Amino acid sequence: MIRIALDAMGGDLAPEVPVKGAVMAVGELPTPCEILLVGPKAQIAAELEKQGGPKPNLRIVDAPEVVGMGEKPLEAVRKKPNSSISVGLTLQKKGEADAFISAGNTGACMAASTLILRLHPGLERPAIGAMFPTAAKPVLVMDVGANVDCDARELVGFAHLGAVYARDVLQRVEPKVGLLNIGEEDEKGNAAAKEANQQLRQAHGINFVGNVEGRDVLSGDCDVVVCDGFTGNVLLKFYESVAKLFAKLLAREVGKEALQQPFMQSVAKVLDYSEYGGAPLLGVKGVSIICHGSSSARAIKNAIRVAISGVEAKVSDHIGAEFQRREATV
Amino acid sequence: MIRIALDAMGGDLAPEVPVKGAVMAVGELPTPCEILLVGPKAQIAAELEKQGGPKPNLRIVDAPEVVGMGEKPLEAVRKKPNSSISVGLTLQKKGEADAFISAGNTGACMAASTLILRLHPGLERPAIGAMFPTAAKPVLVMDVGANVDCDARELVGFAHLGAVYARDVLQRVEPKVGLLNIGEEDEKGNAAAKEANQQLRQAHGINFVGNVEGRDVLSGDCDVVVCDGFTGNVLLKFYESVAKLFAKLLAREVGKEALQQPFMQSVAKVLDYSEYGGAPLLGVKGVSIICHGSSSARAIKNAIRVAISGVEAKVSDHIGAEFQRREATV
Repeated sequence: MIRIALDAMGGDLAPEVPVKGAVMAVGELPTPCEILLVGPKAQIAAELEKQGGPKPNLRIVDAPEVVGMGEKPLEAVRKKPNSSISVGLTLQKKGEADAFISAGNTGACMAASTLILRLHPGLERPAIGAMFPTAAKPVLVMDVGANVDCDARELVGFAHLGAVYARDVLQRVEPKVGLLNIGEEDEKGNAAAKEANQQLRQAHGINFVGNVEGRDVLSGDCDVVVCDGFTGNVLLKFYESVAKLFAKLLAREVGKEALQQPFMQSVAKVLDYSEYGGAPLLGVKGVSIICHGSSSARAIKNAIRVAISGVEAKVSDHIGAEFQRREATV
Repeated sequence: MIRIALDAMGGDLAPEVPVKGAVMAVGELPTPCEILLVGPKAQIAAELEKQGGPKPNLRIVDAPEVVGMGEKPLEAVRKKPNSSISVGLTLQKKGEADAFISAGNTGACMAASTLILRLHPGLERPAIGAMFPTAAKPVLVMDVGANVDCDARELVGFAHLGAVYARDVLQRVEPKVGLLNIGEEDEKGNAAAKEANQQLRQAHGINFVGNVEGRDVLSGDCDVVVCDGFTGNVLLKFYESVAKLFAKLLAREVGKEALQQPFMQSVAKVLDYSEYGGAPLLGVKGVSIICHGSSSARAIKNAIRVAISGVEAKVSDHIGAEFQRREATV
């Protein structure tokens, strides 16, 4: 059975929300899995008690320390070896879990995942992929914040990571990869994007569709959109805020009842990030999923579902093989 | 009377749309102005004839050449000295017009504005500001594409340009300037943003509110959001596409009639870019406004209104003075 280590202390409403998400997951997900709730034993047990008591396939793993949302990532990871993040990832490293999920301090999850799970050869840093909802199937945008100053080689690396993930987890056949840029012509863009375009034209195993502009991200024409982590992070947070703006405008123009109308709720559901559960941290040896600090229990449950897919599809092995091939052809 | 040179051949539906916009402007705008319709004389005259014939304060200035939307900017500007873009800008250079507006080839407008009007001392390139609609007053985001590889000094320059424009044209008192970044903390971001944050903390005459994230752009908390032209361009085009996505989702979820409901139209109006008319090209000695290729006549009319405000407020003089001060304090 697949075993998922879940940071029970991660997120704005921990441990309540992660524990609730875990309870939902063991009850509702079609693939049976064991969930290891990682955190201070007594506190997690008390929370679980509140939510109906122990359940089959839910197990508590003690981790007495907690990394705060505002703590400096690297410092926190070094100072707190017994945090729920480090203990959860170590379970995976030791082969006692197949995946790790946290809605806690993103930087700390990234740092700890890199230090504990290590990276596949050929990668210098992991990258974070985010699912952007569209009118059709969602698009994977990456990187969304792990790498802020990117050179062309890194951008091409994101393309490889994203393509494997799109095939394995999103079930896209020959996923289309676009390079986010300020124009469609190959010679457009900043220095990194121009060079990345050239390298992607030559890259093996990537179905590169060329440059795409800001307006194309949501068109549904790409499965993966590659960009530096600065642009991706700005875009992700901007997109999340736009749904709120629309709601605010509707409320102002026609009153709050507009938001209660069934069609508005349908639209909101399509744009609901909790559907996708979390953002995969790609490049590490293993499966590590980072969730929003404000994730709902449903988002945690969906992150567990995504983690299971990643484990079943062997996405990490395939990423390792992809980069081995890439290194061999350089 | 203020005289506006309008590129009558600029945009996807030229000369029809620019001429229509000019006719609307002389008929509707509160400030009287003379509009110089720049383009091939016979063609513009014929178009004007179709739209009710000659009018007071509308004058045709012959420019036999036209720069295509797909032409390479610098090459087109060099090869076609008698294009509507170059002739229009030369009118301003010679003191025969106070401002220039075009919905044509953005790159060509930028190149020709720089070559013909020249830049204020202390600037190496102009920058493009774009108005982003929000639930409250719109926010000026810049740069949105004139400068793709930006260092800190350039980012700080955008802050100065934007602050003057926000005061003069948008009538914001002590405009709040934010630096687009991936976190609020001063030490966040890519190399250019980190350094720009430090410089902005020291900068005179700028009401710097610190780093802002993607989610803050539309919050209405800033008057000006500063970013490199790569990120700004991606964000602008993305935002334009989101309104279309919402419409598509609504149409899919509840049928096309949803879009005809009065409240949807109210919302659409708030998010309507044509309200703001065009994007100012800042840093050149003069007033140059760049419109979307797909601008409507109403957008052209509003761009004329914006250009008039810029001329009346002496925005270019104030930018010159701001950069003179900046150079003196370095």
